[in-house]
Amino acid sequence: MKDYQIDVQLSTTKKEKPAFNQLSFGTVFTDHMFVMDYTKGKGWHDARIIPYQPIMLDPAAIIFHYGQTVFEGLKAYKTKEEEVVLFRPDENMKRLNRSNQRLCIPEIDEEFALFALKKLISIDKDWVPNVEGTSLYVRPFIFADEPYLGVSPSDTYRFMIILSPVGAYYKEGINPVKIAVESEFVRAVKGGTGNAKTAGNYAASLKAQEEAEAEGFSQVLWLDGKEHKYIEEVGSMNVFFKINGEVVTPELNGSILEGITRKSVLELLHYWNIPVVERRISIDEIFQAYHAGELEEAFGTGTAAVISPIGELFWQGEKITINNGNTGDISKKIYESLTGIQTGNHEDPFGWRVKVD
Amino acid sequence: MKDYQIDVQLSTTKKEKPAFNQLSFGTVFTDHMFVMDYTKGKGWHDARIIPYQPIMLDPAAIIFHYGQTVFEGLKAYKTKEEEVVLFRPDENMKRLNRSNQRLCIPEIDEEFALFALKKLISIDKDWVPNVEGTSLYVRPFIFADEPYLGVSPSDTYRFMIILSPVGAYYKEGINPVKIAVESEFVRAVKGGTGNAKTAGNYAASLKAQEEAEAEGFSQVLWLDGKEHKYIEEVGSMNVFFKINGEVVTPELNGSILEGITRKSVLELLHYWNIPVVERRISIDEIFQAYHAGELEEAFGTGTAAVISPIGELFWQGEKITINNGNTGDISKKIYESLTGIQTGNHEDPFGWRVKVD
Ligand SMILES: Cc1ncc(COP(=O)(O)O)c(C=O)c1O
Ligand SMILES: Cc1ncc(COP(=O)(O)O)c(C=O)c1O
Repeated sequence: MKDYQIDVQLSTTKKEKPAFNQLSFGTVFTDHMFVMDYTKGKGWHDARIIPYQPIMLDPAAIIFHYGQTVFEGLKAYKTKEEEVVLFRPDENMKRLNRSNQRLCIPEIDEEFALFALKKLISIDKDWVPNVEGTSLYVRPFIFADEPYLGVSPSDTYRFMIILSPVGAYYKEGINPVKIAVESEFVRAVKGGTGNAKTAGNYAASLKAQEEAEAEGFSQVLWLDGKEHKYIEEVGSMNVFFKINGEVVTPELNGSILEGITRKSVLELLHYWNIPVVERRISIDEIFQAYHAGELEEAFGTGTAAVISPIGELFWQGEKITINNGNTGDISKKIYESLTGIQTGNHEDPFGWRVKVD
Repeated sequence: MKDYQIDVQLSTTKKEKPAFNQLSFGTVFTDHMFVMDYTKGKGWHDARIIPYQPIMLDPAAIIFHYGQTVFEGLKAYKTKEEEVVLFRPDENMKRLNRSNQRLCIPEIDEEFALFALKKLISIDKDWVPNVEGTSLYVRPFIFADEPYLGVSPSDTYRFMIILSPVGAYYKEGINPVKIAVESEFVRAVKGGTGNAKTAGNYAASLKAQEEAEAEGFSQVLWLDGKEHKYIEEVGSMNVFFKINGEVVTPELNGSILEGITRKSVLELLHYWNIPVVERRISIDEIFQAYHAGELEEAFGTGTAAVISPIGELFWQGEKITINNGNTGDISKKIYESLTGIQTGNHEDPFGWRVKVD
C-alpha cells in the first residue's frame, strides 16, 4: 500500500450534472467512488476507484446492528483559476483516526487516504461547482461489514469516499438562525462517543432536532449530559459567543466534537488579536450576559455551514434576540476570511489550502 | 396491510445446516428472510419473504452515516413435541416500537410484524435446533435507507427479519463470568438512547468491552453517565444482586434497556414470593455488602445468555468473588424455570410461550 496503488475503473457513462446554481445539500453524487477493504491479519487492501454504485452487504453485517462506523466531512472548492482546492484535509484524516480508535476500527494510513481522496476528486473534478456558496462535499466513511450478530469489533471493514456537489446546508445560508436550547434530550456525555464522528451520535440527535423544527427552530443547542447546565454544541456545529468584547467557546471536554472550523476560527481570532477563550460556559451565563446587555454575538461553526449566526435563542420559555437578529461583525469577518481562504479568493497565511492536483 | 399480505418467494436451493450440537452464536443464517419497505406518504409496503441474500444500498444511505436504526432480539425454541415456540414476542414488538419512537422511525404494526415473524420461522422451521441450550435467534431490524447526507430522519426505511440457529452466547454458558466495573467509558446517559435498542449504544460499548477482555474479563458492568456511581447494566444484560436475602436490580431510569428477561425475572420472583426491589444501587453499596458478608449472588439477564451468574467483580483495584465463584441458588432456580418455560419443558403459568404455527 505504501506505493499508493489504486486500481481505477472509470465509468463508461457519465451522469447528468445538476445546475450548479441550484444545488441543495447531499442529494446528488458524482460518477465515481473510492473503496478499500480491511481484513484482519491482512490489513487494508484492494484500494480502488470505481463507478458510483450500490453497496452489497450481508443482512447480518455489523453496521446494521451495532453501528461500528466513523465518518468525516470536508469540502473541495474551485478557485477562480479553476484549480480544485481542499481545506485542511489532513485534519480530517487525523480526526478520522481518532474516531477509529474510539470505535475499535483499525487505523488508516492518513497520507494514503488523502492521496486517494485527491485522486478521486481529480477524476470527478468537473463536479466541483464554481458558483459562490457551492462546493464539492467529500464524505469519507468506514464501516464494519462482517456478518456477525455478536457485540464485538468486526474482523472486516470497508473504507469509502463519496462526493456530492452542494449548496447551502441551511436554507438560511449566512442569515441568522433560531436555536432552541435542549432541556430534555442529550447528545453525548463524557466517556461516551461525543468526540468521535460516529453514526450513533447523529441518530441520538434526531428526536430533539425533529421536535425543535416542529416549533420553528433550525437546530438545538445541546447542554452537557451530566448537569444539563453547560453548553456543548449546536446541531452539527461548534458554538461561539461574543460577550463584552471577548469571544468564548466551550472547551474540548471529551463530549463535543473537535471541529476543524472551530480550530480555524480560534486560530484566526488569535491571529487578529481578538480576545478569545476556550472554557466551560453555562447556559445561565449566556442569558445573564444577554440581560446585562453584554451578549454581542453568537454563531455556530462547521464544515457544512462554515459560519451560521444565531439570531434567536430559546430556553425555558424565554426567547432572546441576539444582535437584533442580525449577523454580527465578527461572524461576518470570520465568514469572509474563512470562505476567502477556502475558495482561493484570499491569501492563505496559515497554509490551510491544499491543491488537489 | 391489515389483510396480512406477504409475498413469499421460496429459495430453490437449501443451504447445508450446521451440526446443532456445535452451534456458535450469530454466524450462520437460515434460507429465508423477511423484508418490508417504508416510503413517506405511502407507509409500510411490499412485505415479502425471500431467499436470504445481500442487501443493496446506495453508499449515501442514512444508515451508513447517521445510524438511524433499531433492532430486536428474541428466540424460538423447539419443544420435545417438535413444536416451535417463541418467548413473549409481543414484548419485543412493543419495545421495537418504543425504540422506533426514540429514533424517529415510523412505527410498525406489532400484530402484523409478529405474524410475519411467525410465518418466516415456520418456513425455516427445520432450522430451529432441538439440542439443549440451543435455539433459533430471531433478529428483527429496521434501518433508514434514503440516500441523503443531511442529519434528519429518513423518508424511507427497510424492516427485515433474519434468523440464526445459535448455541451459548458466552463460552462460559451458565458458568459464572468475570466482570469489570467500567470506570472511564459510559454506555448511555439519561436523555440519550440507552433505553432504545439502537446500534449506536452498542458501538459505544465496544472500546470498554475490548479493554476488559484484554484483561481477562467477559464483560463490563456499566455505571451511570452522570455520577459514575450507580449500577446500570452488564454488556447486553440487565443485572441483579441478592443482598441479605433480598434481590435488587437497578430501576428503569431512562438509560438502561428494559429487558424482557429482566421483566420476566421480576415476575417470577414475585410469583415465588422472593423479596425483590427495583431501585437505584450504587457500586459502593455492592462492595460494602460484600465486605459485610451480605452479597449472596449476582447475575445478568438477557435473551442471548438467559441468566449469566457473576462469579467475580473487579473495581478500582479490588476483586471480589461472589458465592465462591459458583452459580447461586436463585440464579439456578431462575435459569431452570425460564429455560423450562421457554423450551416447553415446564408449565407456563404466565402464558409467555407463543406457538409459531
Ligand atoms: C457534532 C458536530 N459538531 C461540530 C462539527 C463541526 O466540525 P467541523 O468544523 O470539523 O466541520 C460537526 C461537523 O461537521 C459535527 O458533526
Ligand atoms: C443493552 C442491553 N441490556 C439488556 C438486554 C437484555 O434484554 P432482553 O432481556 O430483552 O434480551 C439487552 C439485550 O438483549 C441489551 O442489549
